[in-house]
Amino acid sequence: MAQDHRLRMAAGDIADAAVRGRAMEGADIVFHLAGVLSAFAEQDYALSRRVNLDATLALFEAAGAGTRIVYASSIAVFGAPLPAHVDDRTPPEPALIYAAHKRMCEIALADFARRGAFEGIALRLPGIVARPRGAASTRSAFLSDIFHALRRRETFTSPVSPLSTFWIMSVECCVDNLVHAARLPLSAAATGPALTLPALRLSMAELVAAVARACGVDAASVSYAPDPETEAVFGGYPPLATPLAEKLGFRSDGTADDLVRRVLATR
Amino acid sequence: MAQDHRLRMAAGDIADAAVRGRAMEGADIVFHLAGVLSAFAEQDYALSRRVNLDATLALFEAAGAGTRIVYASSIAVFGAPLPAHVDDRTPPEPALIYAAHKRMCEIALADFARRGAFEGIALRLPGIVARPRGAASTRSAFLSDIFHALRRRETFTSPVSPLSTFWIMSVECCVDNLVHAARLPLSAAATGPALTLPALRLSMAELVAAVARACGVDAASVSYAPDPETEAVFGGYPPLATPLAEKLGFRSDGTADDLVRRVLATR
Repeated sequence: MAQDHRLRMAAGDIADAAVRGRAMEGADIVFHLAGVLSAFAEQDYALSRRVNLDATLALFEAAGAGTRIVYASSIAVFGAPLPAHVDDRTPPEPALIYAAHKRMCEIALADFARRGAFEGIALRLPGIVARPRGAASTRSAFLSDIFHALRRRETFTSPVSPLSTFWIMSVECCVDNLVHAARLPLSAAATGPALTLPALRLSMAELVAAVARACGVDAASVSYAPDPETEAVFGGYPPLATPLAEKLGFRSDGTADDLVRRVLATR
Repeated sequence: MAQDHRLRMAAGDIADAAVRGRAMEGADIVFHLAGVLSAFAEQDYALSRRVNLDATLALFEAAGAGTRIVYASSIAVFGAPLPAHVDDRTPPEPALIYAAHKRMCEIALADFARRGAFEGIALRLPGIVARPRGAASTRSAFLSDIFHALRRRETFTSPVSPLSTFWIMSVECCVDNLVHAARLPLSAAATGPALTLPALRLSMAELVAAVARACGVDAASVSYAPDPETEAVFGGYPPLATPLAEKLGFRSDGTADDLVRRVLATR
């Protein structure tokens, strides 16, 4: 990625004002994806405060009126357990430090946008697949690992039962939505809000079937050894309705097969 | 107040850790009422960030597991314009820096409480009367000034029309509710939430009539010169339902006459 001639790397600690200054120099569109992921944040409040809250607020404070900030929030803001149905009117009830800080930044973003400090839009991302293998030992890693395993015809054991459901999106589809957010004409009414992105709701059995189909392996070769804790977190994502984002042109992958095709086309 | 032998004063900047340390030393119950009020916060983001957000988070971070924090939030979190009806399910949509910071602290408080860092409860206060005369030149000062004026049989001109409505509570009733919050058994389910307090919804005409009655003056002596901006903020507070707080034993003043009696009994 660093070799793409369109990219200028400014690697460093986002909590460092000099690093943020280098990264945002001359930028009229900022995709703010940096963050300490949920499991790590839950183990280290101070780190999450520094990165997920304070550095994000500092980034907002430094942005000028000509800037548009596309802020990556998360479906984690809805907390757990989830209600029987989630839509644009479901009140966020964060149940993780990570989620609380994401929600606090959504509110801050809306307030900066209200005051015209910059144009801002927050997108609540679902589970994004596939992350690089072994990139992060998060509880949701199995959603990526099934792609890595079946593509290599390796055995795979699911830590959730076949009927477990989750909200999921391919990296490609996620990028399309981020770019759409950057280009979208934002009316005063639409600027600032946190939008839950459309996502595919799949069961583990549906995901396994689609990945197996695409990789030409037998879905029956996947075994299941549900882990109670993983099952508790990824056992039952309810139906999700996102008319607000869809009306603005944001899209899910469409079908399980489309999602799998996009994921497998990327290395 | 400083002469009450039960009180120990620790005056200073709440953003100063040493001041917070002195104020909270040995405290098992903390009523956190300190803040930069809405009009001032709107004019000075950095001040609101420092006092209303950062100092509050620092206070939360320093509190021990044996502490209960009663945090004064505000009906300002609901934003403007308000929906036609507000209840415990109405989503807060802050439209002021002050309100955004209050809402962010509500979320932080709930997260600290969820983790058992301390017991926390946030109360959303309505307009509290009467503030000391000339204490703060806020837009809502007229709600206090009418008491000061009619008690002294001075003329009073209302900056809102007779049919303007607002949510209001006497200082006495507010204190009762704060103390109730400090003593309330908090289940795991009840800890952390932000509760909108029951409040009286009165029109200016109703308030004028009750204050005039109690002071023995003619309500017709009050004149009206509605100011469009004040009217826009205090013109139309809709009906308010707060079953969650009422079920937990929080109370409004009951009637306009009760509210006025309590206010006039205090100097």
